Amino acid sequence: MLNRRRKLYEGKAKIIYEGPEPGTVIQYFKDDATAFNAQKHDVISGKGILNNRIAAHLMTRLESIGIPTHFIKSLNMREQLVRSVEIVPVEVVVRNIAAGSLAKRLGLKEGTPLPRPLIEFYYKNDELGDPMVNDDHIMAMGWADPYELEEMISMAFRANDYLNGLFAGINLQLVDFKIEFGRIFGEYGDVYIVLADEISPDTCRLWDAQTNEKLDKDRFRLDLGGLVEAYQEVAVRLGLIPREGIIKEGDFNEELAAQLETIENEMAGRTNIRSIKRMRAKKGTPVV
Amino acid sequence: MLNRRRKLYEGKAKIIYEGPEPGTVIQYFKDDATAFNAQKHDVISGKGILNNRIAAHLMTRLESIGIPTHFIKSLNMREQLVRSVEIVPVEVVVRNIAAGSLAKRLGLKEGTPLPRPLIEFYYKNDELGDPMVNDDHIMAMGWADPYELEEMISMAFRANDYLNGLFAGINLQLVDFKIEFGRIFGEYGDVYIVLADEISPDTCRLWDAQTNEKLDKDRFRLDLGGLVEAYQEVAVRLGLIPREGIIKEGDFNEELAAQLETIENEMAGRTNIRSIKRMRAKKGTPVV
Repeated sequence: MLNRRRKLYEGKAKIIYEGPEPGTVIQYFKDDATAFNAQKHDVISGKGILNNRIAAHLMTRLESIGIPTHFIKSLNMREQLVRSVEIVPVEVVVRNIAAGSLAKRLGLKEGTPLPRPLIEFYYKNDELGDPMVNDDHIMAMGWADPYELEEMISMAFRANDYLNGLFAGINLQLVDFKIEFGRIFGEYGDVYIVLADEISPDTCRLWDAQTNEKLDKDRFRLDLGGLVEAYQEVAVRLGLIPREGIIKEGDFNEELAAQLETIENEMAGRTNIRSIKRMRAKKGTPVV
Repeated sequence: MLNRRRKLYEGKAKIIYEGPEPGTVIQYFKDDATAFNAQKHDVISGKGILNNRIAAHLMTRLESIGIPTHFIKSLNMREQLVRSVEIVPVEVVVRNIAAGSLAKRLGLKEGTPLPRPLIEFYYKNDELGDPMVNDDHIMAMGWADPYELEEMISMAFRANDYLNGLFAGINLQLVDFKIEFGRIFGEYGDVYIVLADEISPDTCRLWDAQTNEKLDKDRFRLDLGGLVEAYQEVAVRLGLIPREGIIKEGDFNEELAAQLETIENEMAGRTNIRSIKRMRAKKGTPVV
């Protein structure tokens, strides 16, 4: 079945397949890691599984506070069922602490807390190297209309507030994160903006609150190693996998990951973590 | 007297001297041309005189439609008396047609008309190479508050509309231009934002409407030559110097420029062009 499905799009870290119903697609998380506009590339075994798990969790949490997302449900270790959207070709970055390109651009020391969260926009275009743009570029070029942009900005700041709280509660600093938005077209010509793509350690900067240890994709960008351990640490703190389940990089394979999923689903049974297995199990059972 | 004055600041193309009264400074236009963050540098005899003349005219025109500026009056060939302002460290660029860094950033062909005028912001910082920033960087870093930024944006678009009209009337296309703003502090803690710095062929892209010939600093940036002729052509079309006064690059010297000024002032006597000599001449004469 995996092979018969139509591939709609392959990105750097994910593949989009045709979904089972109209208006849906399947988002598959690869193990590929890229940085610096794909000039740096590697395959890191287990990364896709962890990102799938973390992204599903974070999207569900954001949905719970009323931020509409493309997420429908997890399907398996590497796949999510999501709504089919028309992606707005703008990456939205929210920053709380200076790091990465902002530190460089404004000459700030990495780790400098910003006076307040700030938002940036990048035009999604690999050929041009995802150039930074401003809100006026976005509106003048028609990538989003002023109402859509306002929605995106408001959702981005709300997501930042919520995620800041969520991560603070598990001793992580949300330094910055990148999100993308998509359009869903309603029956009557109505258009909705929803959070799309993923939120994961691939798209966030997450530092340990005490040690400032980087638990995100900077481990790959800066050749620090230990990426899979770091992503698992995030998943552990989020309560998605038990600490005893952590697997070392290199030892990570699909078999071990499957064991991990069993543990996960056991945990999901005990808690209210969303799990597709749990949802499936419910299917045949009568509603109480 | 020139030597006794206190120099307050020397920039790439201008020097700011202490003014004759509190709250005023003298803006001196040099012949220095720089580009690509001063990596390219040359001295182009006559450029400063032309920019002084053109900038004084354009500031006066903008003041006439109610855009407050720092400009008080022309003093001589190279100097203007202007209000002392606290410069907002943000360069504001308004673009009508894709060119320069925008064409590169968005992958647009130079000369592509934009769907509508768009605005960009650059952080004034030579060390960082004047990086592009967005409105949120400006507010978060405290370079301008939201009210000031709103004023700046509104003045920038108004100036664009007016200058677009002015240049269209003399067969020039205003491709884009850069402006700067300054704060003036009132007696009661009130703060005013005014247009500052200069508007000239150094800070605009001006193309002949028929031939698309560049009549601006791109002649220097792109090594096209004929910069002084081009700037004079702009001055001629603006009615600031007579066509018969045009001097070839290389032949340009202060003596010739002085002759030019005589012609200018004769013209100023016939028209309502603002001229300091004309203003001086009026001093002793009774008001009619």
